[in-house]
Amino acid sequence: MAEQPEPTHFLHKLLNPQSLCIFGANENLLQNMGCQELLNIIDNGYKGKVYPIHPRLETVLGLKAYKTIAELPEVPDLAIILLPKRIVPQVLTEIGEKGTKHVVLVTAGFRETNNADAEQEIIDICDKYGIRFIGPNCLGIINTHCKVGDEECILNSTWVNYFEPNRPGNVSIASQSGTFVSHVCFLNPEIDLHYSKTISIGNSLNIDLVDCLDYFEQDTTTDVILLYIEEIKKGRGRAFIEAIKRISVKKPIIALYTGGSEAGAKAVASHTGSLSGNNNIYNAAFKHGVIRVNTVEEWIDAAVLFSKVIPIKAIPKGNRLGIISVAGGPAATASDQANRLGLKIPEFPDVLQEKIKSLLPATAQGVQASNPVDFTFTISPRVFYEQVPKYIAKMNVVDGMVFIGAYGRDFFQYHEIGMKFYNSEKVQQGLAMLKEFTESGIEYLKRMVKKFKIPIIFVNYLGIKDEIVRLLNSNGFTVFRMEHEAVSAMRYLMQYGMFLEKLNTRPN
Amino acid sequence: MAEQPEPTHFLHKLLNPQSLCIFGANENLLQNMGCQELLNIIDNGYKGKVYPIHPRLETVLGLKAYKTIAELPEVPDLAIILLPKRIVPQVLTEIGEKGTKHVVLVTAGFRETNNADAEQEIIDICDKYGIRFIGPNCLGIINTHCKVGDEECILNSTWVNYFEPNRPGNVSIASQSGTFVSHVCFLNPEIDLHYSKTISIGNSLNIDLVDCLDYFEQDTTTDVILLYIEEIKKGRGRAFIEAIKRISVKKPIIALYTGGSEAGAKAVASHTGSLSGNNNIYNAAFKHGVIRVNTVEEWIDAAVLFSKVIPIKAIPKGNRLGIISVAGGPAATASDQANRLGLKIPEFPDVLQEKIKSLLPATAQGVQASNPVDFTFTISPRVFYEQVPKYIAKMNVVDGMVFIGAYGRDFFQYHEIGMKFYNSEKVQQGLAMLKEFTESGIEYLKRMVKKFKIPIIFVNYLGIKDEIVRLLNSNGFTVFRMEHEAVSAMRYLMQYGMFLEKLNTRPN
Repeated sequence: MAEQPEPTHFLHKLLNPQSLCIFGANENLLQNMGCQELLNIIDNGYKGKVYPIHPRLETVLGLKAYKTIAELPEVPDLAIILLPKRIVPQVLTEIGEKGTKHVVLVTAGFRETNNADAEQEIIDICDKYGIRFIGPNCLGIINTHCKVGDEECILNSTWVNYFEPNRPGNVSIASQSGTFVSHVCFLNPEIDLHYSKTISIGNSLNIDLVDCLDYFEQDTTTDVILLYIEEIKKGRGRAFIEAIKRISVKKPIIALYTGGSEAGAKAVASHTGSLSGNNNIYNAAFKHGVIRVNTVEEWIDAAVLFSKVIPIKAIPKGNRLGIISVAGGPAATASDQANRLGLKIPEFPDVLQEKIKSLLPATAQGVQASNPVDFTFTISPRVFYEQVPKYIAKMNVVDGMVFIGAYGRDFFQYHEIGMKFYNSEKVQQGLAMLKEFTESGIEYLKRMVKKFKIPIIFVNYLGIKDEIVRLLNSNGFTVFRMEHEAVSAMRYLMQYGMFLEKLNTRPN
Repeated sequence: MAEQPEPTHFLHKLLNPQSLCIFGANENLLQNMGCQELLNIIDNGYKGKVYPIHPRLETVLGLKAYKTIAELPEVPDLAIILLPKRIVPQVLTEIGEKGTKHVVLVTAGFRETNNADAEQEIIDICDKYGIRFIGPNCLGIINTHCKVGDEECILNSTWVNYFEPNRPGNVSIASQSGTFVSHVCFLNPEIDLHYSKTISIGNSLNIDLVDCLDYFEQDTTTDVILLYIEEIKKGRGRAFIEAIKRISVKKPIIALYTGGSEAGAKAVASHTGSLSGNNNIYNAAFKHGVIRVNTVEEWIDAAVLFSKVIPIKAIPKGNRLGIISVAGGPAATASDQANRLGLKIPEFPDVLQEKIKSLLPATAQGVQASNPVDFTFTISPRVFYEQVPKYIAKMNVVDGMVFIGAYGRDFFQYHEIGMKFYNSEKVQQGLAMLKEFTESGIEYLKRMVKKFKIPIIFVNYLGIKDEIVRLLNSNGFTVFRMEHEAVSAMRYLMQYGMFLEKLNTRPN
């Protein structure tokens, strides 16, 4: 990525504080949200100064505590509040008097419990002091590229630790649900998804989805934007659409929207107090390139695929899918699903079929060597990772490919007797050779993807514990557990590519 | 289950051989399918006699090898063939001469490669000797309840080891894809799914889906039947429908059918040589209670739910869903999806809402305490596992429930600093107490499910590695990773329950 200017948006300051204070943290890990959030801030290695504010405790989690914000030796850049609602106005006033301009207000019990007066009170206080705040009724923020001085670190004020193998990434989330900026971290390791920023906007009384979009547009470490939308607030529809129109041609926006169905709208109302949305707004957003998904799985699966292909610009121009499989069953289910989702699975031209056929062993069942290519029980990595995809890419007959069944060492899981044989010198020598060819094959394929700009997704029933999945991930490939995930994610990528194609544009 | 008679179906003999021989196994684990299948037979602990047949080797994997079947000291009950196609007729003749009546013919290259003459030749030989055979172009069988003498053991002749925590179960599969009887074993441990039998029927030249259905009907260790269907062979449509009509009221049949779309049909043709199916047959099957799913995930997710609720008869009579959640976001996405799938999420009566409200903490957002019930950050196991579900069940307002967010110890994943605090005596004491209440709560809930016959599914983003997931599994609950899986599986169970309700019947 070329050198880009530091974002000027105010959220950049909020997400990169040089110091912070936290209200409402004690040491009761199991029942005190403040304790959980403070522990994550410390444990994930935030490098700025952290000041717990507590009326009685001398220290919290080993940090010196202060009775009020007034006593702090400096003006903290950020204040995080997890206090009961009744004392929030007073604390906000103290924050304003101290001069802190950014707040994450986790405290709940406002609009979502029909408490509009309490909302107006905190709006007035914050307006008076020029405070911008996230929340109320939110869960916190993560910034994996938090700059403190000249150093980068992770700032994580959510409930869930950003544990390994989670690491700094290029996907940013703005969400009206806290779960979808924190607990989703438990899902990421299996699909190699890594966040840049996550922002739980809660009731979005002061900072909303549009602010987050404006910031993500500027943020140099955000390549892919995820939104969890329950509603666009009244009066912000036009701004939302303008932001979408401007940003979606530069960075893909993938949205999970639950206000659309009757039951969804009802659930949403008691969650963040949102009223039913204006469907015209959402329809316009989806027309302007926002990728709309239906489930959390589709959301994070699309995110990981986009996060890998956007930086190398391997964006399909159409919806022709190639399926390469070592097994007939999943090739059929993948084809069936692709068909239902409106993708094309083009028949390969004769000359290509002849070329592929010459590579297949006699037992391979794809007698026409057409699409899907089914080479059951071919274990030649050169054929699988190099020759077949090269022939297909060169002919320009597909816009994206799904590879089903790259099995590594964990395919061989045995008990005592089997392990004895598996560990024999002969088998291990064979595996070492296979590994060598597989590694060079995958490196070849990686170069090919960059050259031809054709995205490739792998499917592997073993999941992340298989060493070949980790190898594919480390080479920039997306690997899913099941074929429906691959087809679904590819469909969304193709949808985005065709949107750009229609506008005759590409992300920078 | 009451004492039931031993099945009389011929497949019972084929799946419970007292001895077997295998053609085509050497010791080249990485390239020889025979070696892989033989190793799984040995390693999974088959207790019958195993005879490798090999023209040159003295021993294979430590077992004495014989040059021909004629030399064997006994007539083996089963012969497994993984030889090149050209010598299959000769070997089948030798098998027939020896007197073996059951064969698994793994060898490929018949109808699926337009080789009809070769098919007729093996049909003629087998008819002459009265041999029943699975295949050709199949992958093998698993029987986790294989009876050899008086002992039960696992017979697994597929490519994939039936490794722990896979164990004998009550779900049986008949599949036209080998992948879906073997490689799916890699998916099962995460959802606590366990097989009874899996049969890869391949081209089903002699034994087909109908035979498998007839056998599963009799089999006392099969409670749930899975089918992967690419086609019903010509002339077998009526028998298929008759079997479906008879069996589906006794045991649920869950079918993944890929011949229905144009692309699916094309993929299928090159896989097992099936021609496009007769849609009337499938439509009739689905009318007679077969549960049709769209993806492998839906297939195995439905299987695990059915496998747990059928034995305790917790089968819903309608499609009213209750959603109980500790987080608003997933409650909204689950509601949204349930709505799209046609389930009802009934509003709770006032008296029930009052009761639930009295249990919720002030921070809980479900101000109406209606459906979905959202009690964010309630950690009282008594409320979550006992009181709320009891109140709901007693009022008879839902037919099934989805519980989102039961987090155990693995919620707390920290680095060095966090672990030090987490391991402190105070936190560990709190966790021990929480664990005790959780265990008694889950036991209470288990009894409640049996009493009220209301199925409950849990959702947990952490997956099987979390100890609470294992605890829920061991108490007979179904736990999925994501909310869309729970809603989808529940929808299929409700569909089955309503089918039975319409017929005014229940499985035995």
